[in-house]
Order: sequence, then structure tokens, then C-alpha cells
Amino acid sequence: MSNPTDTVSHNTYFDGKVQSLGLQTTDGKATVGVMKAGSYEFGTSSPEKMIIVAGTAKVSLDGETWNTYGPQGIFDVQANVKFQISCEADLAYICYYE
Amino acid sequence: MSNPTDTVSHNTYFDGKVQSLGLQTTDGKATVGVMKAGSYEFGTSSPEKMIIVAGTAKVSLDGETWNTYGPQGIFDVQANVKFQISCEADLAYICYYE
Repeated sequence: MSNPTDTVSHNTYFDGKVQSLGLQTTDGKATVGVMKAGSYEFGTSSPEKMIIVAGTAKVSLDGETWNTYGPQGIFDVQANVKFQISCEADLAYICYYE
Repeated sequence: MSNPTDTVSHNTYFDGKVQSLGLQTTDGKATVGVMKAGSYEFGTSSPEKMIIVAGTAKVSLDGETWNTYGPQGIFDVQANVKFQISCEADLAYICYYE
């Protein structure tokens, strides 16, 4: 068994409809992930910077206003809040944890 | 158990040092993935377009010349060939299968 830090960490959410892979970057800890079509609520424990890699997401940070982000779209989420993401087709993203 | 196509496909290579998540995009089938520091050889069965999402990769398509790609760096690989990728730190990418 190789040293655990030698292997990529893999996380699964919402019955496998959202999955992510962890990595360390020059900008700190990050995950790249994929979401199947659907609507999801996430909670943050630290500030997050989300960048869309492929696909389009509708995002609400306050439960009322929704903004749409396509590839290279960026949005920041504060620590200790919940936010909603909805996508009508598969979505890929990278999330940086600040 | 939800319908398999409802869940994100997850693939693991090189003892977990390279892992990928599958998605369908408007540009066709793709995977987003992470590679731990290391040197890897991959084989293609269809043409692939690789785009670096985070990190830096050294790539050789002919086993002799090496090119370096940072974030947003793009390289194309023909079908039915082998190519080498080397990275000194974690790397994230998206690969489009044409």
C-alpha cells in the first residue's frame, strides 16, 4: 500500500452525483470535481474560490438572487455559509480553499 | 442504487496516483483528473485534447522532445499513441476525447 499522501484523495457527495479529487496547488489546497445535472446545497468551513472548468452553473449565495457562470466563470464564497448550485448538464469545476 | 448514469464515473490509475472523473460536455466526452508528482506514460485510443487546470506538466509526445505546460496550457495527442507526462507537484487537467 503506497503512502496515503502519495495517492489522490477522492470524495463523493449526493449519492455519487457530485465527486471531487483533492490536490495541493501553489495557491493552496484545492479540489477538482464533477457534478451531474441537478441542484445542490453546499456548506463552507473556509472561504472558497470556485472556477468553472466545463459546463454552466446557476449559483445563489443568498437563496434569492441567482447568477450564471460558464467556463472560466469565478465566484467566491465566504466561510461558514451555505450556497446553492444548479446545473442542467454535467459540470466540472476547481475549488480553491483559502 | 441510483441509475449508474446518474453518478459521476471515477477512474484510478498508477495505484491511485492518477485519478479522473468523467463528464459529458458540449464538446463531447471528457475527464477531469489529478496527478500526484511523478512520471507517467499514457496510451490513447482516440484523439485527446489535454488542458492543464492547475499545476505544471512536462510532456513528451515522441519520447525525445519535452514541452512544459502551465495552467490553461493545451496539447493535442493523436489516437493510438503513447505519451509521457511528468510533474513535480500535483497537477489538475481536463481531457477531451474527440
